[in-house]
Amino acid sequence: MTKTDMQAKIISTVRQVKETCPLVPSITNTVTINLVANAQLAVGGSAAMVYLPDEGEGLAMAGDAMYINMGTCFPVYAESLPRTARRLIEQNKPWVLDPVGIGLGGLRTEILLQFRELKPTIVRGNASEIIALANLWGLETGMAQDGVRGVDATDTVMAARQAAEAMADFIDGAVAVSGEADLVTDGEQTALSEGGSELFTKITGAGCSLGGVTAVYAAAADPFTAALTAVQAYNLAGTRAAAQAAGPGSFEIAVRDALYQATPEDIAGNPFRFI
Amino acid sequence: MTKTDMQAKIISTVRQVKETCPLVPSITNTVTINLVANAQLAVGGSAAMVYLPDEGEGLAMAGDAMYINMGTCFPVYAESLPRTARRLIEQNKPWVLDPVGIGLGGLRTEILLQFRELKPTIVRGNASEIIALANLWGLETGMAQDGVRGVDATDTVMAARQAAEAMADFIDGAVAVSGEADLVTDGEQTALSEGGSELFTKITGAGCSLGGVTAVYAAAADPFTAALTAVQAYNLAGTRAAAQAAGPGSFEIAVRDALYQATPEDIAGNPFRFI
Amino acid sequence: MTKTDMQAKIISTVRQVKETCPLVPSITNTVTINLVANAQLAVGGSAAMVYLPDEGEGLAMAGDAMYINMGTCFPVYAESLPRTARRLIEQNKPWVLDPVGIGLGGLRTEILLQFRELKPTIVRGNASEIIALANLWGLETGMAQDGVRGVDATDTVMAARQAAEAMADFIDGAVAVSGEADLVTDGEQTALSEGGSELFTKITGAGCSLGGVTAVYAAAADPFTAALTAVQAYNLAGTRAAAQAAGPGSFEIAVRDALYQATPEDIAGNPFRFI
Repeated sequence: MTKTDMQAKIISTVRQVKETCPLVPSITNTVTINLVANAQLAVGGSAAMVYLPDEGEGLAMAGDAMYINMGTCFPVYAESLPRTARRLIEQNKPWVLDPVGIGLGGLRTEILLQFRELKPTIVRGNASEIIALANLWGLETGMAQDGVRGVDATDTVMAARQAAEAMADFIDGAVAVSGEADLVTDGEQTALSEGGSELFTKITGAGCSLGGVTAVYAAAADPFTAALTAVQAYNLAGTRAAAQAAGPGSFEIAVRDALYQATPEDIAGNPFRFI
Repeated sequence: MTKTDMQAKIISTVRQVKETCPLVPSITNTVTINLVANAQLAVGGSAAMVYLPDEGEGLAMAGDAMYINMGTCFPVYAESLPRTARRLIEQNKPWVLDPVGIGLGGLRTEILLQFRELKPTIVRGNASEIIALANLWGLETGMAQDGVRGVDATDTVMAARQAAEAMADFIDGAVAVSGEADLVTDGEQTALSEGGSELFTKITGAGCSLGGVTAVYAAAADPFTAALTAVQAYNLAGTRAAAQAAGPGSFEIAVRDALYQATPEDIAGNPFRFI
Repeated sequence: MTKTDMQAKIISTVRQVKETCPLVPSITNTVTINLVANAQLAVGGSAAMVYLPDEGEGLAMAGDAMYINMGTCFPVYAESLPRTARRLIEQNKPWVLDPVGIGLGGLRTEILLQFRELKPTIVRGNASEIIALANLWGLETGMAQDGVRGVDATDTVMAARQAAEAMADFIDGAVAVSGEADLVTDGEQTALSEGGSELFTKITGAGCSLGGVTAVYAAAADPFTAALTAVQAYNLAGTRAAAQAAGPGSFEIAVRDALYQATPEDIAGNPFRFI
């Protein structure tokens, strides 16, 4: 695919979301749940969040795509997450997994192991998370399993390239690795999206809300296009927001404004390249 | 009642809240819980949120009014919500129900059916939610039960007028229907409040926080006055915030500022009319 | 200790946090969880929030310090909070307790009684909460136990001095009492920090996020220095934010920006005095 073809796909994806307002429910963590919903609304989607098993199943059926984020697990997740994922797969609905906090606690590991069979369409995480999940699933990463440190990446994006490509092959979807530049791959083609801002590391929920927006675009495009469109939107919004922000508070607000204002052409025009 | 009489009541309600800072606890959803509390504080109330049954009962007794929002149900809600509502009724305390997500899942439906007997003082929702709740309670709506789509209204406000009036009669309180204009009724008199902004649909929690603010005013006024005062405050704040916002992020911040700055006279002066 | 010595300690604490980015996990309430994380990031720490018992234990071991806030208790807290506190003590890790909502409900009281033995390193609360906790633990306060009203202080900071000093002695740590001025004591020395803004009472989470930031500084300093550094940072940020805010929304954003921008010398230079 040429870069120009890719840009045309991004433009079409952004436009379709703005026109159709897809419903993209989430089961997601309480820390950043508000920003996830707000980011999804800003780009033109519709949001709905739940915790209970039958509500997850109901939204898997009602929604156009879904977002599952592993942060702040509750006991009921033992049922809610597998049942919701199973319904998504039955319905052939795209869904995005964000394996936040991988390595911490028994329930999280047990559910992430179940997702090896209940395969997500797109996985989004930082380099450490993607490498850890690839190791948990027994994929080839060329790396030892990494520890988890808060929700920060301690590995660089390029170090996770092999893990990301192996995972994208395994799920027959796409993987997005967040970092200074963002790597997106479907196992055959791999792109790096640039821009953004260091201030993304000084707000909570940059990654989570990117995951939620990725799910919105997954309602309107193939996995690779959806994942790349979302990181392009975030890198553009981060660049624009950083230019006017006095710190992380005003940055977060400006990111929401910029996600809302960005045209399809703006998002396609953010710097990226195939590698 | 003349419009001038109504305005005098609104002024008195807003003033009383600012002077007495009523305690208005909530059991509310995790997506927008922060904005609910912040909006309640901005208009002069005091907030407190809980999940557990005995804590709900304790706050029903300690508070001046209460807000119950059905979003993001937890398993413990099966006990917490009915026990809290029962205590509110025993104590003759006003409370506001926001039937977010009606139609989704077994627990939500079961609890909303219990609220048919444990009647709220005020119900606030969008047109689809009000029609769905009226249908669930077997009231005359002149409409078939509507599906649920995210938290958006798919029905117009005026289409919900009959359902809202029947519900207000049934609970012997007031019903507020959010939309392009906001309808408030106690079954005998019905008003439409105007203003606001399309940007309210691009932030999460506009409706939830309006519900929380409605409960604050319910601590100081009859149900109809409380519901109308709250929508007047929101429409005014939305109009003012939209005039300076660059997008949904700065809009949300400006709404909080505007709720705080609005004088009693400003709120009474927002356009509304009896219909 | 002279004021100049104290300022040198504050400067060193702020600098060390900015350089080492300590991981400071929390079990904290859903109302303000986002602001807690964002404030911790703004001052240079790293955040992670959980609810489950083994996850609390895991983070007690992985973290450099921890924050436990009693707001919005879930049923699982009956296990999570004591097990996490026990692990913190075994590991000799500093932790901050915020007894929000003390007096409400059975579980909260039961857990707070367990914390009499599983002693926190620092307790942070408003005057009413500190007096209530001292009474619950049977310490000398010179006051009757106070009721709880929302999350506001109904007692003044100075009225809680005796309770705070007795509690600091009892836990062999420090106690911070929030109010118009903030009192910090380790039982031997007591300081008052000034500044801040009345607008802190019009946003939710000012106290909670101050608690989270206190835990960040506790990763880098003794309890008294950590608690004083945090209130100094908040009072400085509040003063600066109030100078440019139009209301509580823009104030909250400006506080986050100001926490991020404040230099070690700025924070040490905020007015305080030993009393």
